[in-house]
Amino acid sequence: MLGTSGNFSAVVSRKPLRLAITSSSLPKGTLRASDILECDEEGRVVTKVKGTKAKPSAETLLHIEIVKRRGAGAVLHTHSVWSTMLSDAWPSGHGDGSVLAIEGYEMLKGLAGVTSHEHRELIPIVDNDQDMPRLARRVGETLERHPAAHAFLLRRHGLYTWGDTLADAERHIEILEFLFETIGRTQGGPSWR
Amino acid sequence: MLGTSGNFSAVVSRKPLRLAITSSSLPKGTLRASDILECDEEGRVVTKVKGTKAKPSAETLLHIEIVKRRGAGAVLHTHSVWSTMLSDAWPSGHGDGSVLAIEGYEMLKGLAGVTSHEHRELIPIVDNDQDMPRLARRVGETLERHPAAHAFLLRRHGLYTWGDTLADAERHIEILEFLFETIGRTQGGPSWR
Amino acid sequence: MLGTSGNFSAVVSRKPLRLAITSSSLPKGTLRASDILECDEEGRVVTKVKGTKAKPSAETLLHIEIVKRRGAGAVLHTHSVWSTMLSDAWPSGHGDGSVLAIEGYEMLKGLAGVTSHEHRELIPIVDNDQDMPRLARRVGETLERHPAAHAFLLRRHGLYTWGDTLADAERHIEILEFLFETIGRTQGGPSWR
Amino acid sequence: MLGTSGNFSAVVSRKPLRLAITSSSLPKGTLRASDILECDEEGRVVTKVKGTKAKPSAETLLHIEIVKRRGAGAVLHTHSVWSTMLSDAWPSGHGDGSVLAIEGYEMLKGLAGVTSHEHRELIPIVDNDQDMPRLARRVGETLERHPAAHAFLLRRHGLYTWGDTLADAERHIEILEFLFETIGRTQGGPSWR
Repeated sequence: MLGTSGNFSAVVSRKPLRLAITSSSLPKGTLRASDILECDEEGRVVTKVKGTKAKPSAETLLHIEIVKRRGAGAVLHTHSVWSTMLSDAWPSGHGDGSVLAIEGYEMLKGLAGVTSHEHRELIPIVDNDQDMPRLARRVGETLERHPAAHAFLLRRHGLYTWGDTLADAERHIEILEFLFETIGRTQGGPSWR
Repeated sequence: MLGTSGNFSAVVSRKPLRLAITSSSLPKGTLRASDILECDEEGRVVTKVKGTKAKPSAETLLHIEIVKRRGAGAVLHTHSVWSTMLSDAWPSGHGDGSVLAIEGYEMLKGLAGVTSHEHRELIPIVDNDQDMPRLARRVGETLERHPAAHAFLLRRHGLYTWGDTLADAERHIEILEFLFETIGRTQGGPSWR
Repeated sequence: MLGTSGNFSAVVSRKPLRLAITSSSLPKGTLRASDILECDEEGRVVTKVKGTKAKPSAETLLHIEIVKRRGAGAVLHTHSVWSTMLSDAWPSGHGDGSVLAIEGYEMLKGLAGVTSHEHRELIPIVDNDQDMPRLARRVGETLERHPAAHAFLLRRHGLYTWGDTLADAERHIEILEFLFETIGRTQGGPSWR
Repeated sequence: MLGTSGNFSAVVSRKPLRLAITSSSLPKGTLRASDILECDEEGRVVTKVKGTKAKPSAETLLHIEIVKRRGAGAVLHTHSVWSTMLSDAWPSGHGDGSVLAIEGYEMLKGLAGVTSHEHRELIPIVDNDQDMPRLARRVGETLERHPAAHAFLLRRHGLYTWGDTLADAERHIEILEFLFETIGRTQGGPSWR
């Protein structure tokens, strides 16, 4: 997690929905208990470590959208050079700028439910927005349009993925970052280096 | 080892053949004793730590094929960005897509039996397949056609190498990954970045 | 910090100005107390650990210029491959060789005072010079011409940034290095690889 | 040090010349006392830890050549991807294939005796050879032709540098590797990626 970017969450209970999420300014190094907050499905804080002034991640509404639409147990958001690059310029033969398509790689088998390299994974790309309720709606519509997607990219921002557990989400991040780098290096956009 | 990919094995005894191999879901971080299983030459588990539900690596039959045909003491399989790239598009002057040719590098001297940089190493590229018995046969035929090869690539999958010991196999991995990156950066395929 | 390059400082007091700065030969590994010196606003050492022969960083005058003009609490200077590259050849669409322009990235939000990805950050590029008083004057004029800049590049040398605290300056370094690599890889100069 | 490649030495005494050098098979991880051997100026072992079968590095004669011609106190030889690449194809504007020229970078100031970025460093490139006495002669002639050089490259092999101490040699390696990567990325040969 670089420069206070990135965040992650885990579902504590489903009815009512309670989500444990990292606070808005992630400290470098080890997280402490006061860096995790518990929110309801509107993104409002319901449990706070005494005395802390921390606020939940600005992107809490995106986590909630993902948890509700996908039944995810955990959500992970990271920024990386390769995901930022691929969110912004589509490599030829890999989509049209609103969806990144990756197929044929053994690595795809680590994505939940994927059992063969002969799988075509579509990763939708969503335009970034500072208006979180509006962005959350756009994310929700995107997830609805792509029910099989394991992840989506925010343009010039980063990668969102999820899983039943945080370990599943982490595995997805590793796999997708690996594939982004492989594709970015071999078939980048026209002006890529 | 990323996203549960990669695996390795070591020969415990030759007659009968007993192979210690990593289980099918490699945990991140340190391996524990219950993550290593012992198999016979059909890939069936013969020894299991009590209470474990682990299954041997899905690619056990490939390890057995290598051990039998090359008399290897250990087999190592890894996924990396550069090996995945080079398995998929042949850099000009380095083969024809079914064999990757590397020569002239001092680093080649670390491969078993190679004593000069004036050595031409041929690394065959095998198409990936989820049908393991079929893939194992294809690997066996490939190893027969290339008796001097120290390694082979599975297309869009990764690198397999071996040695008398796991340390030898590790040294081979380091050498080949180094060479893949060097070649990939200098003489990649036409659209590479 | 490679090869004794790079340096950092923190303001100990403002009136009179006292700056704690790394000595001229940064030892590899952990810094010791004798590696930090205290200087006044002319760059003269005012406090020295007994017995040390250390001299303040050769670039102390640049740190002082930044502290005075920006009211910074800490200054950080690093050398990196990507910052060196971007200081030297301007990627098309990102400035004219004397200023590097970066916009549209969520990562920009970590820069002090930046609240949206729809922000255009201008990073001036200053020609390197071994004459420190002359270079300090040039840096001062550059900071005056670009009052909103969070950093500047020294051509074929490296990156200077600052913040209220060393942690803020570190966050700026992380963000800018990330953006330099992203831009360098996607839209490098005409002959870039 | 990858795959048993790379080696280093330090002068123990000058008259007679005694050189402590790493043995021919560098173990991974921490070196032990039995991994360092002492040689005379013909490269013959004069002191050996009892019971060890280790042989001195195959490249001992190159170390001796450098120590004698440059009066170096330590010699360091490494293999890296960027040094291997730059030894093999000359980037335009950086020499003619037998000498690599680097100038204008602040990083050059870490090389012994260099006090300004306005310095032109010439790094000769020597063809590799398994015949060590012959290669040592070629290295000697090259060092004579380039009395100001701080290092030389062995084609498709790696980098040799030296210094008064091992720390000086290490600093040279860091500086040169940094510059190789910077140049390799910005102005590589015609087919570079």
